[in-house]
Amino acid sequence: MRVKAVVAYDGTDFLGFQRQAAGRTVQGVVEAALERVTEKRVPVVGAGRTDTGVHAEGQVIAFDTEWRHSLPDLHRAMNAVLPQDVAVRELAQATTGFHPRYDALSRRYRYTVHNAPVRSPLARRTSLHMAQTLDLEAMTAASGLTVGEHDFAAFGRPTQGEVTVRRVMEARWVADPPWFFFEIEANGFLFRMVRSIVGTLLEIGRGRLSAEQFRTILASRDRSLAGQTAPAHGLCLIRVNYC
Amino acid sequence: MRVKAVVAYDGTDFLGFQRQAAGRTVQGVVEAALERVTEKRVPVVGAGRTDTGVHAEGQVIAFDTEWRHSLPDLHRAMNAVLPQDVAVRELAQATTGFHPRYDALSRRYRYTVHNAPVRSPLARRTSLHMAQTLDLEAMTAASGLTVGEHDFAAFGRPTQGEVTVRRVMEARWVADPPWFFFEIEANGFLFRMVRSIVGTLLEIGRGRLSAEQFRTILASRDRSLAGQTAPAHGLCLIRVNYC
Repeated sequence: MRVKAVVAYDGTDFLGFQRQAAGRTVQGVVEAALERVTEKRVPVVGAGRTDTGVHAEGQVIAFDTEWRHSLPDLHRAMNAVLPQDVAVRELAQATTGFHPRYDALSRRYRYTVHNAPVRSPLARRTSLHMAQTLDLEAMTAASGLTVGEHDFAAFGRPTQGEVTVRRVMEARWVADPPWFFFEIEANGFLFRMVRSIVGTLLEIGRGRLSAEQFRTILASRDRSLAGQTAPAHGLCLIRVNYC
Repeated sequence: MRVKAVVAYDGTDFLGFQRQAAGRTVQGVVEAALERVTEKRVPVVGAGRTDTGVHAEGQVIAFDTEWRHSLPDLHRAMNAVLPQDVAVRELAQATTGFHPRYDALSRRYRYTVHNAPVRSPLARRTSLHMAQTLDLEAMTAASGLTVGEHDFAAFGRPTQGEVTVRRVMEARWVADPPWFFFEIEANGFLFRMVRSIVGTLLEIGRGRLSAEQFRTILASRDRSLAGQTAPAHGLCLIRVNYC
């Protein structure tokens, strides 16, 4: 049976989603939980290879299993053995061959900025602290330039020789001072593309770049012109959308 | 010069506020920061002795210092040397002899409950997860019974032979599903009083106790009748009020 699951995690103590030869990864931890519960080796595929330190509220995974009990039982059993920084939010049967990455129509990420004179100990794991006042209007104007189909080579490198054209459906800042949330949805993202866009938008927020220069950087397809990549801990994979 | 400061911390990795013979405490970390910055031994007093694992957004401390530079400089210097899980939010000169505990008119605490079928990895350090649906109306009715001057001996023990009468100015639940926030303000709290009240209110929320029984427990002044003390990590000291 093919199973689709929505997974949330605190990325702080993970070397990203994807299994690696060494180090703690979300995929590794989920596969270990599945092996413990089903007593079989169960390879898992995910919708997005979130980077070291990046969080998720709505990562989507899929796997095949011969589980003979109910799916709610599998759901509960997985959450019972998973560590506290990972949880399966939803779990359901999927169509045979369902692939969380290839079948995804879009992904939605949120980047959280804490814009206040003093850093917040309680928010330090899930937001980027910036003491300097940010020009939200300028950041909003520039983020609008990403909407639509563009070659995003300036903001990220492709994995495995993919094309660098992506379609952004939405990109906006939501302000709830001292919190600024950048929400972006696209049919796909290049490696570190969200963090590169956010880093560049924050340069604009600090008055070091203009929205016009952002337009030029985007058009240049030149990776060296973008601002610094924003740190991983402010980023969260919110949702993956399917048909 | 007497200095008053508002301090925030993530209580997860602290053995509470108060300095102890061994173990990492907020007071110990703040005193170490002050000693490093001022090159003098500076004893600190706090408004509330928050317990192991309890957080703060608005703990108040005071200390005497011979600091010769500006107070904004002292503020910045302290935040520069403090670890990431503690920050000084505000810092100002206080009147001679200002005492954060004895001069406080009231303290405000918030307890956060995450009421959802599945636990949240990203909220696990700052909220109590409860899978069972809670009866908010019943919890609200019972929490109202704490408002006013009462002998709270059923919900906490006094430190150093104090009287157990306290005056609660406000006690209410704010619902933003799946989040339930219990906010309580009083002129003072007995040891573990908030967590004991919350634990008992959650029994009511689960239908194991009635608001009428809560009234009886409060009147009994019998510690053994109260519900289980709610865990520390859902609790946060929000604010301390002065004249």
